[in-house]
Amino acid sequence: MAKYGFGVDLGGTTVKMSLFGTDGELIEKWFIDTDTSNGGRNIPGDIARSILADMKKYSFPASDYIGIGIGVPGQVHADGSASAVNLGWDHTPLLSELTALTGLPAKGGNDANMAALGEYWMGGGKGYGSLVLVTLGTGVGGGIIVDGRCLDGAHGAGGEIGHIPVEPSETRRCSCGSTGCLEQYASATGNARIAAELLASTDRPSTLRSAPKLDARACWDAVAAGDGLAMEIADIFCDYLARGLAAVANIVDPEIILLGGGVSRAGDALLDRVRRSFVKYAFPACRSTPIGLATLSNDAGIYGAFRSLLV
Amino acid sequence: MAKYGFGVDLGGTTVKMSLFGTDGELIEKWFIDTDTSNGGRNIPGDIARSILADMKKYSFPASDYIGIGIGVPGQVHADGSASAVNLGWDHTPLLSELTALTGLPAKGGNDANMAALGEYWMGGGKGYGSLVLVTLGTGVGGGIIVDGRCLDGAHGAGGEIGHIPVEPSETRRCSCGSTGCLEQYASATGNARIAAELLASTDRPSTLRSAPKLDARACWDAVAAGDGLAMEIADIFCDYLARGLAAVANIVDPEIILLGGGVSRAGDALLDRVRRSFVKYAFPACRSTPIGLATLSNDAGIYGAFRSLLV
Repeated sequence: MAKYGFGVDLGGTTVKMSLFGTDGELIEKWFIDTDTSNGGRNIPGDIARSILADMKKYSFPASDYIGIGIGVPGQVHADGSASAVNLGWDHTPLLSELTALTGLPAKGGNDANMAALGEYWMGGGKGYGSLVLVTLGTGVGGGIIVDGRCLDGAHGAGGEIGHIPVEPSETRRCSCGSTGCLEQYASATGNARIAAELLASTDRPSTLRSAPKLDARACWDAVAAGDGLAMEIADIFCDYLARGLAAVANIVDPEIILLGGGVSRAGDALLDRVRRSFVKYAFPACRSTPIGLATLSNDAGIYGAFRSLLV
Repeated sequence: MAKYGFGVDLGGTTVKMSLFGTDGELIEKWFIDTDTSNGGRNIPGDIARSILADMKKYSFPASDYIGIGIGVPGQVHADGSASAVNLGWDHTPLLSELTALTGLPAKGGNDANMAALGEYWMGGGKGYGSLVLVTLGTGVGGGIIVDGRCLDGAHGAGGEIGHIPVEPSETRRCSCGSTGCLEQYASATGNARIAAELLASTDRPSTLRSAPKLDARACWDAVAAGDGLAMEIADIFCDYLARGLAAVANIVDPEIILLGGGVSRAGDALLDRVRRSFVKYAFPACRSTPIGLATLSNDAGIYGAFRSLLV
């Protein structure tokens, strides 16, 4: 019976690699560079080589390995090919390549969905039957787990929480081409924009006016220091985020909602505000849905990628 | 092997009853009154008696029946009890009652989710692996099917599409207590309100000004007759609806979206406008999701209720 497996989280600059025991133990993790030259064509071979080197190191028989699970920043299609704009991939053969080069079965999926599966398995969602993970970084990502399975969707767009329309009056375009997407407000980028707009709209004093860089971190640091305008910025940010979370809750109704990504480091200052707004917008039956923090940080993706092999 | 089963759709004024063959044939359907007196306590007994009478009529052996599937206008809890404000039910024993009185196994769920399952099985969603059904009536209801199963949610709030927040600037309260819910715009009630507001805001002529009753039907009749203001009302209605559908598509990413309920009788005039707005708000990967009409009309609930027995 297989005892080990590989979890791979493919990013735009590095590939996070890991060896897991099927009992859930993270035995080893390491990184390799992501080679985006040549339309990203070298990536599957680089990953396979790194896996083969690791297998050689331990010299367990190949039958000890359950396979390779991989999360990609895009879509993995039914035929095992993958598309990811940032890598230059468009229906690029991935799973078949990995299997051909290593002899191991391979499974793949969207990286945000894999992270959600990781949090469900060993992170903030452990013990819950369903969850929604929302990652607040440069953009807003998301993954949804119901009955232990990712809601990938018919076109790989399941869990694209960042692109829920939340503001009809918005005129600026989101990166997706639409207007008024959640990501335009509830991302680190959106946070900085809300801050710049509020500061420009008033003469009131704020420590943010002398911040070297008006980014999400500066805003939440100022919130922690008790800055009044920073708290207003945080309220606006969290109100939009809560609208998006309420939309997800009213549609999927998970047992728990988890927040991850850089902005989630704000912790209770973020959670308290989001919870306060969430009860205003969620359907009565699901207003008590707990909202907590993701706990696996950057490891969520490898946990989930490996876990996908056990489904 | 069981050959027959009962599908029951419990409404606030009538109970729709049906006998199905396990091959999917609707053999017989009939109605009984919903007795909401006495906290709705007589309802399970009334349904059971009607089923027993039907079983007696055919005199098949009891082992020929797979059971009773029932949709309720509220939630069916894990213990088989049900809550439904309109019936006066709060954790009222339902499934155990039905089984005790008829000797048949019973399964239950929310009526909108059952309707979605019906459309998936034998209606507009036949042949698709996943769907979202949105019913446009007095309110906006919804049901979501993924891999043949209802997304009921952790608190029975799965598919509460009518309460997705879509308009931050709204000040009036929705029946759920929140503000800016989809239902406040994309229901028959919302349609009439949009019409009244647009007519009051301008002096421009419209046949709607002399309509005996300014309701959704009058609006869509005026659209069909080429009335300019009515078309603007329809555009506003459909734009809000499309925002809600885009939210669902970006979260669940179904293979098809179906519209049902009274307002869906507007047909192509509705569909064309909704599709035009949907592509503006949906995530690129799922912009091509087909949007069609539900086809089972008021029978969707009994189809789904019976079908739930086969899962």
